[in-house]
Amino acid sequence: MDITHIEHLGIAVKSLEEAIPYYEKVLGLTCYNIEEVADQRVRTAFFKVGDTKIELLEPTSEESTIAKFIENRGEGVHHVAFATKNIEGALAEAEQKGVRLIDKTPRAGAEGLTIAFLHPKSTGGVLTEFCEGK
Amino acid sequence: MDITHIEHLGIAVKSLEEAIPYYEKVLGLTCYNIEEVADQRVRTAFFKVGDTKIELLEPTSEESTIAKFIENRGEGVHHVAFATKNIEGALAEAEQKGVRLIDKTPRAGAEGLTIAFLHPKSTGGVLTEFCEGK
Repeated sequence: MDITHIEHLGIAVKSLEEAIPYYEKVLGLTCYNIEEVADQRVRTAFFKVGDTKIELLEPTSEESTIAKFIENRGEGVHHVAFATKNIEGALAEAEQKGVRLIDKTPRAGAEGLTIAFLHPKSTGGVLTEFCEGK
Repeated sequence: MDITHIEHLGIAVKSLEEAIPYYEKVLGLTCYNIEEVADQRVRTAFFKVGDTKIELLEPTSEESTIAKFIENRGEGVHHVAFATKNIEGALAEAEQKGVRLIDKTPRAGAEGLTIAFLHPKSTGGVLTEFCEGK
């Protein structure tokens, strides 16, 4: 598998407006994009740090998986996304090696990426995403 | 503040021996070091991916904070560590901006780094570490 770097960390927050000042004013990062991903029922805010992005995820509905995550576990790291240049190959290899896939085929994610999730039961408790860039 | 990149992700696991094969055989990363940090009561396994390390943390005692984390929340991402070239300055700036510090002064961490933790109540639920290299 050709994982090149951590593309982003997804962090569940109750409110972007309350969370963004910590990342900007304390850590000195810059929020360069806010995007709504309607089918995931989240609003996302993006920061870049080294070759990784931080993606804050605010639920826009009580039915959002992010709302349920916060209800069960509180705010915090929701998922880790690895960059690959061949998401189809990475998914096939993971499945062949016994990993349970949430997305059997890649789908469109935020920022124009093609994404797919692996089940945390197969990945040592870490909800894991593969991403392929444009 | 001069955060340059995510130095590492700390991931709590019950057993290094059970967790390492996923990172090596599925993700294709290489475990380049295993180190015991006696005062933290953990054994750690390190992988590099892009400019970030993955640090698996296995408790060596039931009294370890990692053992308690796993008992309460299960295996998963435990903390996010940001690299800085000036950890004293970063801590002072964070405290001045209202962040609650777990470590008021930096201390020695794994791999020869100087480290300090910020309290997750001040950082949107993410247990956050600052690291300065040698």
